[in-house]
This record gives sequence, structure tokens and C-alpha cells, in this order.
Amino acid sequence: MKTNPGRFFEDFRLGETIRHATPRTVTTGDVALYTALYGPRFAVQSSDAFAKAIGYPASPLDDLLSFHVVFGKTVPDISLNALANLGYAEGGFHRPVYPGETLSTVSEVIGLKESSNKQTGVVYVRSTGSDSAGKTVLSYCRWVLVKKRDPEAKIVEERVPELAKVVDPADLAHSLPPLSAQAYDVDLAGSPYRFSDYVAGERIDHVDGMTVEEAEHQIATRLFQNTAKVHFDAHATKETRFGRRLIYGGHVISLARALSFNGLANAFALAGINAGRHVAPLFAGDTVYAWSEVLETAELPGRTDVGALRLRTVATKNQPCGNFPDRQGDGYDPAVILDFDYWAFIPR
Amino acid sequence: MKTNPGRFFEDFRLGETIRHATPRTVTTGDVALYTALYGPRFAVQSSDAFAKAIGYPASPLDDLLSFHVVFGKTVPDISLNALANLGYAEGGFHRPVYPGETLSTVSEVIGLKESSNKQTGVVYVRSTGSDSAGKTVLSYCRWVLVKKRDPEAKIVEERVPELAKVVDPADLAHSLPPLSAQAYDVDLAGSPYRFSDYVAGERIDHVDGMTVEEAEHQIATRLFQNTAKVHFDAHATKETRFGRRLIYGGHVISLARALSFNGLANAFALAGINAGRHVAPLFAGDTVYAWSEVLETAELPGRTDVGALRLRTVATKNQPCGNFPDRQGDGYDPAVILDFDYWAFIPR
Amino acid sequence: MKTNPGRFFEDFRLGETIRHATPRTVTTGDVALYTALYGPRFAVQSSDAFAKAIGYPASPLDDLLSFHVVFGKTVPDISLNALANLGYAEGGFHRPVYPGETLSTVSEVIGLKESSNKQTGVVYVRSTGSDSAGKTVLSYCRWVLVKKRDPEAKIVEERVPELAKVVDPADLAHSLPPLSAQAYDVDLAGSPYRFSDYVAGERIDHVDGMTVEEAEHQIATRLFQNTAKVHFDAHATKETRFGRRLIYGGHVISLARALSFNGLANAFALAGINAGRHVAPLFAGDTVYAWSEVLETAELPGRTDVGALRLRTVATKNQPCGNFPDRQGDGYDPAVILDFDYWAFIPR
Repeated sequence: MKTNPGRFFEDFRLGETIRHATPRTVTTGDVALYTALYGPRFAVQSSDAFAKAIGYPASPLDDLLSFHVVFGKTVPDISLNALANLGYAEGGFHRPVYPGETLSTVSEVIGLKESSNKQTGVVYVRSTGSDSAGKTVLSYCRWVLVKKRDPEAKIVEERVPELAKVVDPADLAHSLPPLSAQAYDVDLAGSPYRFSDYVAGERIDHVDGMTVEEAEHQIATRLFQNTAKVHFDAHATKETRFGRRLIYGGHVISLARALSFNGLANAFALAGINAGRHVAPLFAGDTVYAWSEVLETAELPGRTDVGALRLRTVATKNQPCGNFPDRQGDGYDPAVILDFDYWAFIPR
Repeated sequence: MKTNPGRFFEDFRLGETIRHATPRTVTTGDVALYTALYGPRFAVQSSDAFAKAIGYPASPLDDLLSFHVVFGKTVPDISLNALANLGYAEGGFHRPVYPGETLSTVSEVIGLKESSNKQTGVVYVRSTGSDSAGKTVLSYCRWVLVKKRDPEAKIVEERVPELAKVVDPADLAHSLPPLSAQAYDVDLAGSPYRFSDYVAGERIDHVDGMTVEEAEHQIATRLFQNTAKVHFDAHATKETRFGRRLIYGGHVISLARALSFNGLANAFALAGINAGRHVAPLFAGDTVYAWSEVLETAELPGRTDVGALRLRTVATKNQPCGNFPDRQGDGYDPAVILDFDYWAFIPR
Repeated sequence: MKTNPGRFFEDFRLGETIRHATPRTVTTGDVALYTALYGPRFAVQSSDAFAKAIGYPASPLDDLLSFHVVFGKTVPDISLNALANLGYAEGGFHRPVYPGETLSTVSEVIGLKESSNKQTGVVYVRSTGSDSAGKTVLSYCRWVLVKKRDPEAKIVEERVPELAKVVDPADLAHSLPPLSAQAYDVDLAGSPYRFSDYVAGERIDHVDGMTVEEAEHQIATRLFQNTAKVHFDAHATKETRFGRRLIYGGHVISLARALSFNGLANAFALAGINAGRHVAPLFAGDTVYAWSEVLETAELPGRTDVGALRLRTVATKNQPCGNFPDRQGDGYDPAVILDFDYWAFIPR
């Protein structure tokens, strides 16, 4: 059989390394589409002139565009037979990516844990995106619940990896070039608030809402060459639990991040991902809102130009975030769809 | 509060200058999306080879793409609390824009007029788009009806600016490079009709219709980094007068202009905007048609290569324009959505 | 009348050559949109680094993107008054196209055959896409059923051309640069199967399905500057036999080809089109599936790097292809929408 059936849980081996297809050269065409699909307005990623003025050689890609391109490649090998994307950790954006670079992805299987019912198991992978010279661009861990082909299959070796609860921002301090915080023009950037204006515990309602159409998430998800069929096949998904296409979780992350510009306009680059959870599914026709909490602020060793904010951005569907919908008891407010904990750089 | 609440009427000051976020480098990615969203077929903007053959260094951007990018930046500062976009005047396209250039926008408040009910007021701005060297690319005036935060707020200074009814095309005669009208290939351009083939009073039905989908206008409006929430938030707009998302008025201008290719294929570049009025709103699912009237023809001082046509393009929804739907009594035929009066360059 | 009414059957002359508007410079923006609209994952077209490693100067465009751009230009002159697109033959992709190149199209009328009812006739054209230096990039024949303006009009000269049933792949052997099959990395390409792994008679179900939205096919069809009104005008098409917009047949070809990656990942470039038939129309909301049969395998004279597969790809709507829906009696299984017979290059 020449078509790819995807790996089942018993097909993964601890420590195994998987080189994914398809390498992808990212271009200004991808950048335009990313802007058109999500509406980000961060000045560094929008303007070559602005980026150069502060010390970049050119506008870098939005970090989440690179993330989705790196992630998309893992789907045919890791999650074609997944039932759920359970979480992210230890994400690091190691250097800016520029149009013209080619991204490839390799994943290492760092954990395996069969479910007690023997029908499924959790696969933990560390996926690393590299440029064409093999230099790491970004990496992250994720774990997914994957079906077994054969419930009787014996699992040789299992391990649940220990993953850091929080990435140390000092480890990512040098993933940006040296920048001139003085040359950073806050009028053009859209907000006067710099590093020192944010305090731990502060909560920001990002106010705006964005309704998602089927065409939009399909166009985005194909752009990332993510082939998970639940996003594309309305005929087959009629028979699923939701009865319809499910929107790629990364689409929600990008929408929430773009909405967060209104309140976090200068937090222009991602440094790391501490944790991420897709709390509930999003469907076409739903409207996404978001709010953020500043969890920590961190000065960075050897850098007087930028600091880091640890942010927790929560996205909801069909409910504005003026009252900060959040965890409730063991779960979440029913409107919440995403809980995303990350570090972002911001000028001092 | 770190989110932008937008200015209310009483927050504007006569003569005030506002530097808008976000500077934006326009690319061939934006050009591809513009083509895909509107379907323009003007040869100069479609083909580097055609543009070079007549004297351009490369294909310039469609003028309306530059216009929307310049316009989009003004929304968070000017019209976030606007109830209506009332008009345009004194628009000038001062030079071609090429992929790779960075556009920024500054607006000057040139007029303020409180409404008699004290709930709102009209704000007049002149917005100027510049490249990264600060050179003007295009400028235009527009006026919008903006809410007051506090009906009791006293308005210090008011003025209604005098705006030209018609831009003098001689003032814009040198906004195009010297071109070779001989090298302009009418077969490749799609029409044999040059400057001298058009006469004042002539009316042209552009015949074709274009149905607009929610995904399309959202993708376009985000591409222009226009953040007006009425275009994006189906949840919040359920509570509005229309009960649904409203399409960005500029989307209609671009659709009408692209449709006008059929009949005006050689009127390849905009020179100026005399007047523009969004007569009625457009919603997803509606089909846009257009017709144009030649209002004037103008030879241009010092140019034997191109002349200018003053065109009035009228767009309708859900009604073909074979019978030229137009003004009716004090208002308009109910199908009319746009009345746009502009100058376009055309080879002699 | 300055608008283009399109040619009717009696307006065509045997041997006539038509130079079409609008020349079009293709860019990485077009490539990004093509990826986003169809989801192809062929490594050569996705990665400059991969393409260079095997001997290309850069990633070429997907051959079908070039095909659609070349085809789109013919619509205003050939098929504006067409009732049906009847078939394709003698298609050849003569060399790779790279971003930055400008494509133009010329068509020669190679056949005319009036229908017995005198209401319509079949027009056969050979359309040739060239670069700005006039060098042929691709060519193909197609025939369309075109309305007569006047049923009484006398047809001066008729001829039904003889078209090859199958293109000789030897004629296209040198349309690719010399490549290194050794440097072709099957992990990155997504499949271990090379030329010798495929045998005539083999059938492959491509498994995945793709649902099409109105916004998607409209965005694609405008990108190709294809102006056929049936694709865009929901208002006018309410009165047609189908009561709604019809999706451009080329959209189905591109979807089927992108789906065929799953099973044919290394058949990375088209060589020629033997035959193509749009068996039934596709509408928004439908889900496209595809399967392929290997009709022939061909070694190529003077090439040890690549061979050619003659493939027949059949697309269906709303029916997965596990049981290979095919011809039935004189017609087809009612789910079939496309029957496309072509040659593709694949590394040895």
C-alpha cells in the first residue's frame, strides 16, 4: 500500500528519530497570507524599515508562522491517528526566521504511555525545526493520544518524560539579535507600554473578536501543509462526534496572539512556550476573543534592550473576555477554548 | 488600561497630527492576494515585462492596494468609534509603489463639526501615506461621524474645511514615470480603446458580477491591517442594526474597479479621487456589479504619452447595471452601494 | 460597445491566432496561495533547498499553477460564451517555470465543427504559454462547445483536428534539467517509492478528502485571472440549470493532484496531459476524493535520473475512493467528476 496510513501507538519506539517530509521554503507570500488570515500588526514583523531601524537585517516571520510550518510536517508521521492533542511544553524559539529560508522538522520520541484500556496510548515527541544548514530554529515538546491498531499489541518500553513546567527565559535570551530599544518607535509600534510598564498579576482584556470561516482555517492549515483530515473533510466528519470539521488548534493560538496586539503591541516576539492546552474545540462560525495575564516579568542576562514577559493568554469562543473567563473548579468556564502560557520579548 | 479604546469626538484637536501604527512593507505576496481577492487584470500591474516595456522599472502595485494599506492604519486612531464613513475628497496618488517599499501613514485633523444633538461629531482628516524615506506616496481627505464619549463635553474649536470638488489632474500629471504609448500593447492589455476613444458623457456597463463571501472580505481587510470590529465579529454584530458583519467599504471600491476592467482595460492607474460615497452597506452573499460614466477627459501638461479620464463608477448589489442605476430624487436607486468619482491615467 | 461580449462560434476562423491579455508575472506570492488553496506537498516545489540539492536552480512552480495562469488568459477570448469545456489533449510542460517569470498565452484555432442543431459549435484551440522572451513553457489543446450568436450564420470552413490519444513521453524527456536521483531524499520527499516501484495496472486510493468552499474556488479562479462568470456570480447563476455557482474545472484537477501526493509523493512534476474530461460539475460544500491508476511506465531516452508514469487520476465528490469509482456502461459512476490522464516524472 503506497498511501500513508499513519503510525499507530504500537509503531512508535522510545528514542526513535523521525525525519519528516516536506521541507518548506518560507516566503513573503506566506507572510502576506499569515497577515491576511490572522491580522497581526506587530511592527517588527510588518515592516522591514522598522525591523532594520532596531537592528534586524529584515523583518522576521511571525514566530507562530514558523511554528505552524514546523508543526505541520509532524502530522503525517505523529498524529494522523491521534484522538487528541494533549499539550505542549519546553518550546523555544531559538532564532528569527527570514523569508527565503527553508524549514525542516525532525521529531524524537521522548515518551510513551499506554492507556489502561489498551485501546490507545500517549506519545510524547520533541520536534525540532531546522534551516537548510541544519541549525535549530525552534523546538517544542507535545504529547498526543494515539490509537492502537491492535489492542493486543504488546508495548515494549514505556516512559513518561519529565518536562519543565516553565522554560527558563535566560536560556533564550540570545535568540534575538542585539536591538536598539531607543530606536524602537512606540508610535509606529502602536503602544507606549514597554517592559517596565507591565507587572505580574496584571490582566488585559484584548477586547476584539474574530469570527472564523471554514475557508479561512482550511486555507491556513493547508498553507502549513498540515494534513489532518478532521480539518478538511466535511463528508467524513459528518460521522464524527462533532458532526463537522474541527479547526486546527494552532489556528486558535494565532488568532489569540493577533488579538493580543491590543494591549501587548510591543511584546513583539515569542521566546518560549511553557504550556499550552486546547481546552475545547473551535468550529467555523464561532467568534474568538482573548485575554492575557502577566504571570512573570524577567530581565535577561546580558541584555539591556529587551526583557521578557511570561504571559498566559486565554481564548474563548462566542464570549467576550471583559470578565476574564478562566478555570472553574476542575475544569474551565465553558467558553474557554485555549490556555496558552508563553514568554515574549518586549523592549525595555 | 493598555487596550486602545479609540478616540471619541471630543478627543480630536484641530490641526493635530497623528502618526499611525503599523508601518507595512508591501510585497509580491500582497500583490498575489490582491489579485486573488478582486481579480484585477490591468497589464501594467500584472506583468513586470509589460510594465518595463513601457517605461516602469517593474510592475507597480495596484493603487487601491496601496490606498487600503495606508487607510487601514488610520482606523485604530480615527474611526474605531465611528458610526459612518461619510466621504472622500482631494485624493492624490503621487507616485507608483513597488514591492519591497514600506508604507506609513500620518493624519492631520483638518476639520471638526459637532452634531446638533451633541451625541456625535464629524471629524475631517487628511491622511498621507509615505515611504520609509518619508516621501509622500498618496494622500486623501475623509470625514467620519464619530461618537462622543460624553455628550456634555465642550468642543473648543470647530471648522468645516473647504475641499476641492474635483482634483486638478495637472497637479498629478507627473505622478507616473515617462511612458511609451507606442510600446503599450493593446492586445496584451485587453482592449483597443485609448484616451481619444473615450468621450465625456459616455456610459459603460461593466457587465460582470462578483459575489462576496465572509472569508474573502475578512481576509482582505486583515491584509490591510484594518481593525474595525464591524467587519470581523459576527457575535457582537448580531446586536447591531444590521445583525451581521458589514463589509469594509474599500472592498467595494476594489471590486468595482476590478470589474471596470471590462470596458476600461487601459485606464490602468489611478491619478486622484475627487469624491467617494458609500451609499449603502454590502453584506456577504451579495453580488456586486458596476457601471461607469466618463465625466471629463483631460490632456496633461507636458505629457504626450498619457491622458486622464475623470470617471464616475457606480456599484450596485444584486442588480446588473444594464440600465445604469443611479441617483433618484434626493437619494439613489436602492441597489446602489457606491458612487466613486476619480481620475485615471490612460495611454494616448 | 467597449465591454467584451466574447466571441461566438461564428466569430472563430480556422487557423486564426489570438494573442490573449493579460501577461502575468508569477511570484512566490502565487506559490504561497497555491499551497494554501490546494495543499500540495511535493518537496521539489516546496523547498528551494531540496530543489537545488537535486539540480534545479530553485523551486519551480507547481506545473498546474502555470497551467491555470496560461489557461485563465484564454477565457475572455475563447470560452466566455461556452456551454461546456469538452476535453483536453496534447498537453506538454516544456520547461519548469520559476517565480519572477512572466507568462503570456497565444491560441491557434485548430478545429471548428458546427453542431447539427446550428445553435452551437465546437471550437478546438491549441493554447501556448510563453515566457517574456517568447519561449514556450507549456501548451495544450482543448475543445469547448460555444454558442452561436445567430443560428442562421453560415460557417465557412470546418475541420475536426486529429489529436494524439497519448503524448509520447520521449518528446518531453528534456523538459526537466538533469537531476541527481541519488540526492533525491525520499524521507524528506515523503515516500520511499521510486519509478521502479510502480507497475502498470496498479491502482492507488489517495484516501484523503477535501471540502471546497465558495471563497476558496473564487480566490483561486481570480488568482488565475479566469473571468468565466459562472464561477463568481451567485445572483445570475440562480437562473441557470444548476441554480448556483459552478467551480472551475481546473480547481478539481489541482485538488485531485494535491490529494494524489498520498501515494504518488515522488511523481513530482507533470510532463504531459493525454486527456482530461470534466465528467460532472462540482459545487461548494462538496468533498473531493481521488484515486489513480498507473496506465504505463516509460523509461526516457537519455535519462537515467527520472522515468515517467502515465497516470489516470479520477476524482469523485462526496464518495471516498476505496472501491475505485470508475466508468460504468456508457458513462461513469455518478460520484465521478474528473477523469484525467497525464504523464508525471518520478526519480529512478
